[in-house]
Amino acid sequence: MKPVARGYASDKTGLPPGSLVHVGQVRETETTVSVIDYSRDGFAEPGFTSVDQLLPFRDSGTVTWVIVEGLADVETVKQIGALFGIHQLVLEDILNTHQRPKFEEHDDYLYIVLKGMLAANQEFSVDYEQISLLVLENIVFTFKEKRDDLFRPVLQRIRTSRGRFLDLGTDFLTYSILDAIIDQNFVLIDALDETITAIEEDLLAGEPGSETLNTIQRVKREIVGVRRYVSPIRDLINEMLRCESGLIDERTQIYLRDVSDHATRVVESIELHRDIISGLLDIYISSVSNKMNEVMKVLTIFASIFIPMTFLTGIYGMNFEYMPELKMRWMYPAMWVIFLTTPTVLLLYFRRKKWL
Amino acid sequence: MKPVARGYASDKTGLPPGSLVHVGQVRETETTVSVIDYSRDGFAEPGFTSVDQLLPFRDSGTVTWVIVEGLADVETVKQIGALFGIHQLVLEDILNTHQRPKFEEHDDYLYIVLKGMLAANQEFSVDYEQISLLVLENIVFTFKEKRDDLFRPVLQRIRTSRGRFLDLGTDFLTYSILDAIIDQNFVLIDALDETITAIEEDLLAGEPGSETLNTIQRVKREIVGVRRYVSPIRDLINEMLRCESGLIDERTQIYLRDVSDHATRVVESIELHRDIISGLLDIYISSVSNKMNEVMKVLTIFASIFIPMTFLTGIYGMNFEYMPELKMRWMYPAMWVIFLTTPTVLLLYFRRKKWL
Amino acid sequence: MKPVARGYASDKTGLPPGSLVHVGQVRETETTVSVIDYSRDGFAEPGFTSVDQLLPFRDSGTVTWVIVEGLADVETVKQIGALFGIHQLVLEDILNTHQRPKFEEHDDYLYIVLKGMLAANQEFSVDYEQISLLVLENIVFTFKEKRDDLFRPVLQRIRTSRGRFLDLGTDFLTYSILDAIIDQNFVLIDALDETITAIEEDLLAGEPGSETLNTIQRVKREIVGVRRYVSPIRDLINEMLRCESGLIDERTQIYLRDVSDHATRVVESIELHRDIISGLLDIYISSVSNKMNEVMKVLTIFASIFIPMTFLTGIYGMNFEYMPELKMRWMYPAMWVIFLTTPTVLLLYFRRKKWL
Amino acid sequence: MKPVARGYASDKTGLPPGSLVHVGQVRETETTVSVIDYSRDGFAEPGFTSVDQLLPFRDSGTVTWVIVEGLADVETVKQIGALFGIHQLVLEDILNTHQRPKFEEHDDYLYIVLKGMLAANQEFSVDYEQISLLVLENIVFTFKEKRDDLFRPVLQRIRTSRGRFLDLGTDFLTYSILDAIIDQNFVLIDALDETITAIEEDLLAGEPGSETLNTIQRVKREIVGVRRYVSPIRDLINEMLRCESGLIDERTQIYLRDVSDHATRVVESIELHRDIISGLLDIYISSVSNKMNEVMKVLTIFASIFIPMTFLTGIYGMNFEYMPELKMRWMYPAMWVIFLTTPTVLLLYFRRKKWL
Amino acid sequence: MKPVARGYASDKTGLPPGSLVHVGQVRETETTVSVIDYSRDGFAEPGFTSVDQLLPFRDSGTVTWVIVEGLADVETVKQIGALFGIHQLVLEDILNTHQRPKFEEHDDYLYIVLKGMLAANQEFSVDYEQISLLVLENIVFTFKEKRDDLFRPVLQRIRTSRGRFLDLGTDFLTYSILDAIIDQNFVLIDALDETITAIEEDLLAGEPGSETLNTIQRVKREIVGVRRYVSPIRDLINEMLRCESGLIDERTQIYLRDVSDHATRVVESIELHRDIISGLLDIYISSVSNKMNEVMKVLTIFASIFIPMTFLTGIYGMNFEYMPELKMRWMYPAMWVIFLTTPTVLLLYFRRKKWL
Repeated sequence: MKPVARGYASDKTGLPPGSLVHVGQVRETETTVSVIDYSRDGFAEPGFTSVDQLLPFRDSGTVTWVIVEGLADVETVKQIGALFGIHQLVLEDILNTHQRPKFEEHDDYLYIVLKGMLAANQEFSVDYEQISLLVLENIVFTFKEKRDDLFRPVLQRIRTSRGRFLDLGTDFLTYSILDAIIDQNFVLIDALDETITAIEEDLLAGEPGSETLNTIQRVKREIVGVRRYVSPIRDLINEMLRCESGLIDERTQIYLRDVSDHATRVVESIELHRDIISGLLDIYISSVSNKMNEVMKVLTIFASIFIPMTFLTGIYGMNFEYMPELKMRWMYPAMWVIFLTTPTVLLLYFRRKKWL
Repeated sequence: MKPVARGYASDKTGLPPGSLVHVGQVRETETTVSVIDYSRDGFAEPGFTSVDQLLPFRDSGTVTWVIVEGLADVETVKQIGALFGIHQLVLEDILNTHQRPKFEEHDDYLYIVLKGMLAANQEFSVDYEQISLLVLENIVFTFKEKRDDLFRPVLQRIRTSRGRFLDLGTDFLTYSILDAIIDQNFVLIDALDETITAIEEDLLAGEPGSETLNTIQRVKREIVGVRRYVSPIRDLINEMLRCESGLIDERTQIYLRDVSDHATRVVESIELHRDIISGLLDIYISSVSNKMNEVMKVLTIFASIFIPMTFLTGIYGMNFEYMPELKMRWMYPAMWVIFLTTPTVLLLYFRRKKWL
Repeated sequence: MKPVARGYASDKTGLPPGSLVHVGQVRETETTVSVIDYSRDGFAEPGFTSVDQLLPFRDSGTVTWVIVEGLADVETVKQIGALFGIHQLVLEDILNTHQRPKFEEHDDYLYIVLKGMLAANQEFSVDYEQISLLVLENIVFTFKEKRDDLFRPVLQRIRTSRGRFLDLGTDFLTYSILDAIIDQNFVLIDALDETITAIEEDLLAGEPGSETLNTIQRVKREIVGVRRYVSPIRDLINEMLRCESGLIDERTQIYLRDVSDHATRVVESIELHRDIISGLLDIYISSVSNKMNEVMKVLTIFASIFIPMTFLTGIYGMNFEYMPELKMRWMYPAMWVIFLTTPTVLLLYFRRKKWL
Repeated sequence: MKPVARGYASDKTGLPPGSLVHVGQVRETETTVSVIDYSRDGFAEPGFTSVDQLLPFRDSGTVTWVIVEGLADVETVKQIGALFGIHQLVLEDILNTHQRPKFEEHDDYLYIVLKGMLAANQEFSVDYEQISLLVLENIVFTFKEKRDDLFRPVLQRIRTSRGRFLDLGTDFLTYSILDAIIDQNFVLIDALDETITAIEEDLLAGEPGSETLNTIQRVKREIVGVRRYVSPIRDLINEMLRCESGLIDERTQIYLRDVSDHATRVVESIELHRDIISGLLDIYISSVSNKMNEVMKVLTIFASIFIPMTFLTGIYGMNFEYMPELKMRWMYPAMWVIFLTTPTVLLLYFRRKKWL
Repeated sequence: MKPVARGYASDKTGLPPGSLVHVGQVRETETTVSVIDYSRDGFAEPGFTSVDQLLPFRDSGTVTWVIVEGLADVETVKQIGALFGIHQLVLEDILNTHQRPKFEEHDDYLYIVLKGMLAANQEFSVDYEQISLLVLENIVFTFKEKRDDLFRPVLQRIRTSRGRFLDLGTDFLTYSILDAIIDQNFVLIDALDETITAIEEDLLAGEPGSETLNTIQRVKREIVGVRRYVSPIRDLINEMLRCESGLIDERTQIYLRDVSDHATRVVESIELHRDIISGLLDIYISSVSNKMNEVMKVLTIFASIFIPMTFLTGIYGMNFEYMPELKMRWMYPAMWVIFLTTPTVLLLYFRRKKWL
């Protein structure tokens, strides 16, 4: 999966604004909805039957978390929008998975969209997933593109926590979700770190081949892609902190600031690795140069030693009638002396020039 | 068509400010004017006969959209300016197609100018077109350099929509036009993406030739050119949002912010692709180095194997009278043994050095 | 002429501040003064005799434009300063032609200094000229280093215009002068564009020689130099717009904003061309690499074909007594077969490697 | 030790926020606690037995400094937190040693976290250590990862100072600690300076080998890592200066500003060295090129001299029956004349081309 | 002298803050103190005997300028500090010559520290000197590291001026001193300009050797060093302009702004030269490539001409019994025809390829 979705970015071009169409790459995931409802008195996970069933939770006084996984079923999103008074453009953004992270404050709810990122495999390629949050007074809706374990720590906590957590409102749930999403990035950075270490070892040890170059370029692209989705998160949270909506309690702010710190650390790590990977490219180029240098030296050494001596044999291979040396008995052994000392002298010369 | 218009930027130099002259490259397009008038009660497309005919629409209470395609007919623009009280400098800007995107708030109207961009062909070259909007209370004038389908989605919507759209004022029409123009950029980015993928495949598969280099350079130039016209759009819309003119309704602001988000996404994609194309240049240069390395290795292998053996044949090609080896019967076969083992040994050596 | 004046920047070092000395390169231009006086009722061009003659214009109610060309005659500047109450440091700045563009608001007058730039010849070298404006209530003084046609369009306009222009005050005259100076830059950019196109064609077509490299470096320097004087102009005009002096009428502000837009366009064009010229350097370096690659291929092809065959001839040039092949009648023709097939095989091999 | 801790950044991923776990690399250091208590009347160093023992110091009116070295004993930190009302997230940050430098103002205390940096050895590798400060009205807690001499100058001063120092509050102690930490960076910069000088001498004198390249790359990475922890310190102190907490006396501000100046100097030195090390990479690459150039020249000189002469010997080694020169007595000496003059001529030619 | 003082930056590490120790490189300069006292009524230069002697000048109503040259004598600085109520940290900064330019407003005095820079010799190496100013109501103290002519123009002016200058207060004296220091930078820039021109000529004319590379690198380092001390000066003066101390008269502000303009010009020149020197490095690298290209061409031409012909001679040097050509009388002359035409053909081919 590439950081730039191919062939999809323009899928909605030409449609009137406000059209609810799912735009994205993950079309096959079937839409499932889970509901968790909790309060100081405990939690419940009622099965989901229809959107209408969610309406009573709005005014129940408990915190309800609705997790929609898979965006193929546009109808569900549409119904939630209609029932809870969500703006058409917000619904559109939820369904179009090319959003950049942003925060919007609406009259009765907050809209947050960002990217969940998972290291897809050993070689640092990243799986992106758009996650939208609608924060109402008593309900948090989350819309995910895929079905995965990203929210497991939060669910775990609700299921096992006693007291404090369950006591807090939707803002604290929102914080916990954001925290889970961003903490996932540290796993990503560790994967990135390992990949870069592997490249470094390749460069130092073996032959710098064109695959190394391709890996460097690929990792660079992935880093650029990740940075694009991580760096707006600080702004997003700062806007949340500044927003005057009553939906975010003052006590939650310190937690959000903590998430912001984490996001900053992720961004700085990304930048750091970007610098390092650029440095690796320089090393790669230098390695190729060094290699060529070495090849040239071998050629030069061979040619410089044997070409002059071949010339010498050429001289006494000439057929002139009057070549007095040809008669001299000691000439041939003398030639061998030359043939053996010349290379020695040249090799010493090359050694002094530090070519050997 | 180049991002920098050649030989035209200075066309007006020396003329007094305020002179109405069409400055641009697309001179041949004949000027045509279309008029669309709509309200809650339906829409009409009266044919255009003269500018005077437009005057009644000013106070009609319906929304009127006047589309001027082709700017060669300066007279029409002049008359519109005179009839609707447009400032001389604004008219000048409409006619001079070297404007950068900007927003100006005047007493009775808003002036918006930006660039429509269409991918001209498969190889990512871009067709630019300057589009000016004059937003009055009941009329929106759009001035386009060329005749194309850029506005089709908006027209479609007016023609087919029932109710809501037709109910809204000129500000919503303005939004719809801006949205159509900017959404077109996503098509552009997809074309760019394809071009870059093609270059990458060229680099990985075949020979990096100088055409590849030229393509990279050309795409880089186009990207720089596109960025130049896209990046001011965010500012443009922010100014629209900040402006206190009564011409933009509060309800439209959320839509404009959506357009601003789209513009941001376009800019970020452009930046991303710019980084990638710079990386491709590095890969190209490395490929050339790698190639030369390979050529050098072939030369060195050939030379290192045959030059020493040629020297050996040279020795026994000498004509000295006293060369005892020449008489030895086993010498010649022995030479053949040397001739066959030397290459083997050297080839093993080169293999160990990973040259083969 | 270099963007950095050699040997002059430190000419005033050591002099007490406020010393009126002309510092600059253009010393030979004789100082001439022209006066134009206009109002709604027409215009007059009285000959200039002495500075004292200018005093009545101060309170005359007409707009007077005093053009001083050539700065060698320090005395004239001094007298103007004394008569019209100009600050010593301003006079100093007028005479020292190493100023960067700036705007200063004084009690009774405005001081503007910027650079006029003219393309000196075909190959994009730029002639700089410092232009200072002193804007008083009824008089505008302009001080130019050289005598040229930069102000011709403004003069033309005054001489031919009826009504409107002549009706406006010194602020509009100031605008017209600034507009003329900045519009001249578009000519410069066209020259730059042509130069770059020529370099590009050189690079694509012929041999990349060291002159190409020098041209690229020279153009780069000129661009850096031009940018240095163009980029502060936006700030300059923004300060003019913000200044609360009564000398700038509100109606003139829209015109100044237009000039600011032009300056922005110039700066962006300059930046664009800077990017392009940097890209050309990359292409140049790649071309040199490509060229070397080609040379290496020729060498390798020649050497790889003939060195092995020469070795073969060497074998049968040896003088061993027992070389059975020498007696075989078919050996010699067989050798020719080898001599003819070896190159063919190798050439096919090189062709498959795409070296040919 | 790498600037990016490998395998640890994600250690806490999946844990609920607020979990107190020590995350870091230095796990083996046993936790020790020292207590220093001083006032105008002298100082005392009571041994540490339990956290409860610290409570009376809170309201004692003397200044108490509690130094916790080693973070393995989570329990101690937890107890301090409970006893002095420190927020859960702050305790978490103290224990997780991947924090970036920051300042937080809480109701009753200030929280400062930054990195102590020590040059680990001769070759500029850096030892990082996270240091957290909790500043209460009468107590300062410092949490260090390791046991080292970083605080020795401050301790020295308390133990030997009479009067003034002991008279001042926890804010001045805080300043002294920050000053000690940042002054340590100058030692680091001197080490960096020496390392760079060594690289420069290597480059100028000997052979640029791949170890030099690796050193350059390593130093670059370390610089990037150091910069990451130094550059936020200015902001940190600016926030301290802006904070309206009563915990920082106005008289201490000038001292904090001095620390800020030092931090700025450190950052600028780091940037300066970063520029220099980038320049060294350019020099390295040029050196490799120069070297290859030299190798090529040797090859070319040898080949150009001997290949033509070998051809000449080849001519008279041919076995044609009718080769009149073979009979000429003076031919062979004439050949020797050619063999001796050709190299001389070519060597002069190469000298003129400045190859020798 | 390097922009980074080696081995001294950390000299004070470990000392308690506020310790008065001279930290710097210029220890040998003996401390001398000169006093100049002037007012409307003339000036006097009383010899300096002791610091106590200066006290009466504080309230005398005249302007007194105390110049301390050489900082080895810590005691004098200490006494001045004690007598005139200067903060301990300011005294420390005066003595520690690693300060970056800054401005500090204290209750009764202003503290300014910046660097005097002198071109040390022909090859653009810079001599730095820290200059501190203490501006009191009636006294200006200047502390210089070295004894040189930097202040000569100001002294000259005091000694020769009648009236105006002597009439103004310590703020105008401060301005004059700053002006003298900054104007000195223009001399520096001229030296830099000459050095760069020399490098350019070297590159264009002769052989690009490794000394050229070293000079480029050295100049780059010096530029980075100079920029570091020049660029904060604008901020410094802006802070002076903003400060509300009564010590700076409103009439002096225009002069300070003039100094700020000069500083801006210096910074821009420095940036410009930095761009140019970076371009020179590119040219250097390209020159090396071009050179190698040329060497390769010579090798290839020689090898391509003689290797095939040597092969030909090899053929007829073989000793096969049945080689009919050997008997043919015209064969040998025919060979010579080949030997003479082959080079001609190849040379024409290479000429067409523009290798010659």
